[in-house]
Amino acid sequence: MARPSPDHANPIAAFTRVPAPSEAYALFRDHVSVRVDVEEVPLSLALGRTLAKDVQSPLDLPSFPRSTVDGYAVRAVDTAGSSTERPTSLHLLGESLMGQTTFVHVTPGSLMKIHTGAMLPDGADAVVMVEDTRDVGDNRIELCRSVVPGDNRIATGEDVRQGDFLLGAGHLLRPQDIGGLAAIGLTHVPVARKPRVAIISGGDEVVPPEEEPGPAQVRDINSFVLEALVRECGGEPMRMGIATDRYEVLHGMVAEALTSCDVIIVSGGSSVGTRDVTRAVIDDYGDPGVLIHGVALRPGKPTILAVVRGTPFFGLPGNPISAICTFVLFVRPTILRILGQPDQPPPVSVTATLLRDIASPRDLEQYVQVRLLWRDGHLYADPVLGKSNLIFLAVRAHGVVVLPLQATGMAAGSAVEVQPYGRDLPMPDHPSPRE
Amino acid sequence: MARPSPDHANPIAAFTRVPAPSEAYALFRDHVSVRVDVEEVPLSLALGRTLAKDVQSPLDLPSFPRSTVDGYAVRAVDTAGSSTERPTSLHLLGESLMGQTTFVHVTPGSLMKIHTGAMLPDGADAVVMVEDTRDVGDNRIELCRSVVPGDNRIATGEDVRQGDFLLGAGHLLRPQDIGGLAAIGLTHVPVARKPRVAIISGGDEVVPPEEEPGPAQVRDINSFVLEALVRECGGEPMRMGIATDRYEVLHGMVAEALTSCDVIIVSGGSSVGTRDVTRAVIDDYGDPGVLIHGVALRPGKPTILAVVRGTPFFGLPGNPISAICTFVLFVRPTILRILGQPDQPPPVSVTATLLRDIASPRDLEQYVQVRLLWRDGHLYADPVLGKSNLIFLAVRAHGVVVLPLQATGMAAGSAVEVQPYGRDLPMPDHPSPRE
Repeated sequence: MARPSPDHANPIAAFTRVPAPSEAYALFRDHVSVRVDVEEVPLSLALGRTLAKDVQSPLDLPSFPRSTVDGYAVRAVDTAGSSTERPTSLHLLGESLMGQTTFVHVTPGSLMKIHTGAMLPDGADAVVMVEDTRDVGDNRIELCRSVVPGDNRIATGEDVRQGDFLLGAGHLLRPQDIGGLAAIGLTHVPVARKPRVAIISGGDEVVPPEEEPGPAQVRDINSFVLEALVRECGGEPMRMGIATDRYEVLHGMVAEALTSCDVIIVSGGSSVGTRDVTRAVIDDYGDPGVLIHGVALRPGKPTILAVVRGTPFFGLPGNPISAICTFVLFVRPTILRILGQPDQPPPVSVTATLLRDIASPRDLEQYVQVRLLWRDGHLYADPVLGKSNLIFLAVRAHGVVVLPLQATGMAAGSAVEVQPYGRDLPMPDHPSPRE
Repeated sequence: MARPSPDHANPIAAFTRVPAPSEAYALFRDHVSVRVDVEEVPLSLALGRTLAKDVQSPLDLPSFPRSTVDGYAVRAVDTAGSSTERPTSLHLLGESLMGQTTFVHVTPGSLMKIHTGAMLPDGADAVVMVEDTRDVGDNRIELCRSVVPGDNRIATGEDVRQGDFLLGAGHLLRPQDIGGLAAIGLTHVPVARKPRVAIISGGDEVVPPEEEPGPAQVRDINSFVLEALVRECGGEPMRMGIATDRYEVLHGMVAEALTSCDVIIVSGGSSVGTRDVTRAVIDDYGDPGVLIHGVALRPGKPTILAVVRGTPFFGLPGNPISAICTFVLFVRPTILRILGQPDQPPPVSVTATLLRDIASPRDLEQYVQVRLLWRDGHLYADPVLGKSNLIFLAVRAHGVVVLPLQATGMAAGSAVEVQPYGRDLPMPDHPSPRE
C-alpha cells in the first residue's frame, strides 16, 4: 500500500497558532455528529448507564393515601379542641392492615388503628400519632391533640403525578434513580448503548505486559490505562493490541476498528515514528481527516484530533501521563456526547495550599500532578515532579492542578484547586469540626 | 418456631441517650472483625477493585537509560561552549532505533541520532534536542547548545527502583494504577474478594416492581436502590427478595443469608411490623445481636446495627431516602472495611448558598436533599422538601446538606457544603474564569 505524503493536511486545521485545549475541543466537537443508539437493560444492571429516553410517570405515587406515622386514622373534624387535659374519646373500629384495603368507613365519632405506610380508610382524612393518644380499653381511644385534614397523611400523587416528567434522556443513572424507576415499575430501562472504543498502542519498542521486555523495549502501559479510562466513563473498550511503526500494520488495524467501533484511539508509543505513521494513516482515510495537530498543553502537546470516515479518531501521545491528560480533555467528553449526556461542569475540586513553586511555560495550559497531605489540620498540595512524565508520577498523585495558558508559574503558599483522581484521598490529621 | 420476647436486648447497647451517627458507628465498628479474602483478577478487570497485598517493584523503571526528546545522543563533555555563533561539529555514527540495542559506542567527537524513548547508546550521557542542531551533511551535525550529563535523559531506575514500595494493600485501583501494574508486568492482581451483601426487603405491603401493586400495596424500591449502592462501593449484592412480616419467613431468609453472605441488610418496608420482626429474629440468632437500636438521625432514626453470629447485620428503615442515608453512614464504611480500605475522608463537597430556610430538630443530625442551580454565575442549593421522604425527593436532588446534631436550622443565604450524589451536576450559566 502506498504511503501518502504527510502534507495532505486538512484545510480545517487552519489556526495561526497552536490552539488552547478548549479551542481545539470546540473545533473538533463541531465536526463530530452524534446519534445515540438505544438498548434495553434490566433495571438491576442500569446503574451508571445513561438514560436514552425521557421518562414520564405512568401513575400517581403514592397510588393511595398513606399514613406517615403509627397511630389512628380519623376525621380531622372529630379531633377539634382535643388536648391532654380535655381529650376526645372516639370509638375504635379496627385496624387498617399493611398491604390490605379495608371496607370499613371511618364514620363520625370513630377511628381506625393504622401503621406507617398503610392505606387510609375511606372517611379518614388525617392521622393522630400514637404518642398523642391513650387506649382506655373497651374499644375507646382518647386523643390528646387535634389534627387538621392532611396531617400525617400523604395524598395520592403527592410525590409524583401521572404524566409528570421524572428523568430526562442523557441522565446518568444513580442508585436513587434506579429506585425511582422501580417505583413506577420500569423493570427494563432504555439506555444508550456503550460506545465501542478501539484502543491501539503504537511503537516498535512496546511489548505486551505479560512479556519480558528485551533490552531497549518497554511494556505496553497505555492500552491498559486507556481501557480503564474508557470503562470509567461508560464506554466499551476494545484493546486491539500493539501496532509497530509500519504504515501497513496500523492501516490494517484502523480498517478493522472502523468496521466495529464508534471511537478510535491510537496512542503513540514514545516515538516520532508512530506519530508520523498515525498522521499518514489518518490522511489516507480522510473524510475529513486531521482537524487539529498540536495543542497548547503540557503534557500532551503533540495530540491529534481527527474524524476518519465519520468516526472520531484520537492520536494521543505515547507518554502515559500525557495520554491520561489528553483522554480526560478530549476523549472523555466525546464518549459522554455519544452517550447523549449533557456537557459536564468542571469536576468538583478541593482547595489546598501549594507546598512548592511550580514553573509553567507561558502559552501552554499545564496539568501538574499533586499529592495531597494534611499538616496541623490544613490541606497541602505537593507537586509530584519528575524529569519525564512516567506513569508512577500519576500513581503517586491524588489529583491535578491546572495552570492556565498565560500563567508562568505558581508560588509556594498559593491556594490551588486540586481536581482529585478519585475518592482515595488522605484522611485529615485532625477531626473535622462536626465530629 | 417460637418467637422470643423482644426484651432480649443486648447489654452492649447501653447508651443513656440515642447515640449520634458517629458514636453509633464507632461502637458497632468495634464489634465487627474483619478478614480480607484475597482473589486474583486479570489486570484488565482490576479497575475499581481494592488491592489486597502491598506491591513492590521487581525491577528498575526505566530498565535502560532513555531519551526524553528527539535529537542526538552525545558525550556532554563534547558539547562544552557550543552556541549558535560557535557551533560544535560532531560525527554522526548512525541512529539508535526504537526498541533496539545498538552495539555502537559513542566515542569522543561523535554522536548518534535518537528518538524520544529510545535507549541511549554506550558512551553517551546526554541528548541534544534536534531543534538545537543543524545537519550540515556528510555525516556532520552542528550543535548550537551545550548540555551537561543527564540532560534530556532518564536514567535507569529514575521513575522506580527495584524493591520500591509502589502501592499498598487497601488501595482502590485507579486507571493510572492499572498502568503502573502493567509497567512492572503484574498481569494478575491480588484484590480483595467482593463482600457478598444479602439484601432483604420486608413488609406485607411490598410487591416486586414487575408486579402490578394491588390497592394498598407498593412496589419494592429498596432492594434495587440497595443493590445499586452495594455495587457502587465494591460489594457483590445478592437480592434475596421480599420477606413478609411473618417471623418464620424472615428467620428462614436470614438463615440462608448467613450461609453465603458477609453482610446482611433488611430494610423494613414501612411498617412497624417488619421492625419488630427484624429485631426478634436478630435477638434469636444473637452472638452478640443488636448493638444499636435507634440513632439521632433524620431521616433514619429507627436503624438497627447488629452483629449476628459474627456477620454484620443492618436493619434499615423502609423509607427509601432513610435507607440511602443510613446505608451511606453505616453499611458503606463496613463494606469498605471488609475490602481492607482505610477510613475514608469526608466526601468532597461543593459550597453553595442556601435558597430557603431549613428547620432542623435539635438532637438529630439531619440530612437534607438539595437541588443545585446556577443564577448569575453563583451556585445555590435549593432544599427539596416534601412531607415524607419518598424516593423522588432524592431523584430530584443533586446532593445532601448535613445539619449537625445541635443545629436548630439554617437560614436562607447561609453558605452550605453540599455533598454531591455524583458527577451529574448542573452546568454553570456563566463560563468559568479560565475559559
